[in-house]
Amino acid sequence: DPITVGIITGKAEDRSGPALVTLLESGELFPAETREIKVVPDEKEDIQAAVAELAPRCDLVLTSGGTGFAARDVTPEAVSPLLERPAPGLVAAMLNGSLAITPMAMLSRPVAGVRGRCVVVTLPGSTKGAVENLRLLAPGLPHAVDLVRNRLTQVQDVHR
Amino acid sequence: DPITVGIITGKAEDRSGPALVTLLESGELFPAETREIKVVPDEKEDIQAAVAELAPRCDLVLTSGGTGFAARDVTPEAVSPLLERPAPGLVAAMLNGSLAITPMAMLSRPVAGVRGRCVVVTLPGSTKGAVENLRLLAPGLPHAVDLVRNRLTQVQDVHR
Amino acid sequence: DPITVGIITGKAEDRSGPALVTLLESGELFPAETREIKVVPDEKEDIQAAVAELAPRCDLVLTSGGTGFAARDVTPEAVSPLLERPAPGLVAAMLNGSLAITPMAMLSRPVAGVRGRCVVVTLPGSTKGAVENLRLLAPGLPHAVDLVRNRLTQVQDVHR
Ligand code: NA
Repeated sequence: DPITVGIITGKAEDRSGPALVTLLESGELFPAETREIKVVPDEKEDIQAAVAELAPRCDLVLTSGGTGFAARDVTPEAVSPLLERPAPGLVAAMLNGSLAITPMAMLSRPVAGVRGRCVVVTLPGSTKGAVENLRLLAPGLPHAVDLVRNRLTQVQDVHR
Repeated sequence: DPITVGIITGKAEDRSGPALVTLLESGELFPAETREIKVVPDEKEDIQAAVAELAPRCDLVLTSGGTGFAARDVTPEAVSPLLERPAPGLVAAMLNGSLAITPMAMLSRPVAGVRGRCVVVTLPGSTKGAVENLRLLAPGLPHAVDLVRNRLTQVQDVHR
Repeated sequence: DPITVGIITGKAEDRSGPALVTLLESGELFPAETREIKVVPDEKEDIQAAVAELAPRCDLVLTSGGTGFAARDVTPEAVSPLLERPAPGLVAAMLNGSLAITPMAMLSRPVAGVRGRCVVVTLPGSTKGAVENLRLLAPGLPHAVDLVRNRLTQVQDVHR
């Protein structure tokens, strides 16, 4: 089955949302299907409501934007309390990969983790940053989603 | 004095526990002595009880397993609240070193830190992953343990 | 405008504080102006009071020391609860850069983030470590501070 994806963006990130959909639906990264794109205000409560609604219906929820240093950048603060199991490995993969491209990646404040049976990741708001970070995660995301969905339990038990 | 080590594994990680003991007792990494191996169920409360019991009796407590994305992987969530002082440097050393070997390391969710006078680290459940991550920490662990045990206070004061 | 900087050090770090001031005021990194240096005891409450007092008056607050594994090293535990928005990208830039120099960097436990309109970063206590880590952050700090101060909102909106 393709990975079902929910995307949450702010109004300022109106270009990165569609760019993520295009990349995901191209199948270049992994088989994926966009379930919904939500455009929400830069408010903690609105972001949290969107994540809480999409997570039970998607394998993967990606937010775009609000991870920087400006006062309105509160996406990590909105998403963090909704993560039941943080995923520092996904965060390190994004930060290490981005820092290898530009030191300006130090201005990113990503969070990632698992909520129920959904993997949630915050991506930067720029189209370039969002696509770049999703590409950095692509080698691991399908396996993460399969484990969360409990699909590969037997394979996993054999190989671990 | 050798570093006294307590090891906590789940039943699924019955091979990585002995592999860690063999490596530690070989003395290849640093002088070490295994105090106890506890095999516990994949339950938050059981893991927490084991850490709370071993930490006061060991310089170093290593868990093996339960750091992945499957539903039963709750070791980081069990250990995190027991860490009085988190050690993001140990986490970065493990993740950076592992990500340099394979992008699949992004699926690891390690935590590390200090509880009382004990250094606590979560290792992956696979024998390969557990050994690999312990080797990544070996250059720093003896000094971390000495500082926590307050052995090198004077040396530290001179050099810092 | 130059970045206004507040520096907080422990008594054991009486050399790294002045070294940071010298480097900052040289203008080599970015235009900066030291507002105050506070020397405080290695106590959580004293460190927190100093951060809470300096943050509203500075663009950047740097602490030096107390980020290691010794029992008295509680600076991250003091600063963490005062950070309204954590900055894992700044932490990764410091740890990745330091780990590339020496594996002993795994013994560092830095935190960084935003409090109100101030960027707060914990630096190691050794003069070498403090200067090295500040240099690692220098390429990104001015932009981080500008965003927090809301100075570049328009530029940011165009480029993101
Ligand atoms: Na890292």
